[in-house]
Amino acid sequence: MMEHLKWSGAEKQVAKRAFNAALEREYAELMHQTRERVGAMQEGDDLWRLHDFLTDQRRKIDDKYDYRYSQLVVVFARLIHEGRLSLDELEGLHEDKLEKIRAILSLARR
Amino acid sequence: MMEHLKWSGAEKQVAKRAFNAALEREYAELMHQTRERVGAMQEGDDLWRLHDFLTDQRRKIDDKYDYRYSQLVVVFARLIHEGRLSLDELEGLHEDKLEKIRAILSLARR
Repeated sequence: MMEHLKWSGAEKQVAKRAFNAALEREYAELMHQTRERVGAMQEGDDLWRLHDFLTDQRRKIDDKYDYRYSQLVVVFARLIHEGRLSLDELEGLHEDKLEKIRAILSLARR
Repeated sequence: MMEHLKWSGAEKQVAKRAFNAALEREYAELMHQTRERVGAMQEGDDLWRLHDFLTDQRRKIDDKYDYRYSQLVVVFARLIHEGRLSLDELEGLHEDKLEKIRAILSLARR
C-alpha cells in the first residue's frame, strides 16, 4: 500500500530534512548518554558495558532510520510517536502521506 | 613444550596477581583513551567511530589475556615486551618459566 505512494521532488526535500533533524536529535541524545556513562566509569567492565550499550543503540538506530520511500510513512509515524519529530516538520507532504501517518499514530495511541 | 610446565600453588598466586595487574593497567589506559575520544566527539559518526574502536580493543584484550597455564609464559613475555608488566612482578615463578620468558623476550627484541 505504502509502497505505491508517489513522492514529488518537493516532498522528498521535506522528508529528507525531517528525517535528518530527527536523526540529529537521536545522536545528540546518545552522545549525552555516552558522556554520562563515560563520566561514571570506574572499572574495566564498565568499558564493556558501554560497548554493549553502543552495539545495541547502533542496531536500533540502523533499524529505525530506514530512508526507503516505501517505509518512510511508518518511520515518520514512529518518530512522532517517540517525540523525536513533530507533525509540523512534515508540512509540505501531501495529504495521502499525512493521512496515513495520522492513522498509524491514532492506532499507536490507543 | 609449555603445556608441560607444572605450576605450583604459590606460582599460580604470583601469576594471577601479575596477570591482573597488567589487565588493570590495560583497562586504565583504555578508559583514558575512551574519555579523550568522548571529550572530542562532535557528530553522530564519532559515536560509531568510538564503537568500532571499542569493538577492536575488546577483541584484542580478549585475545591477549589468555589465562591458560599452557599459554601463560607467552602471555607474560608479550606483556613485558609491551611494557605492561615487569619481570620483577613475576618473582616467585620457578626458573623453568622465567627462562622461557627471557628466551621469548630475547627473540622479540632482536
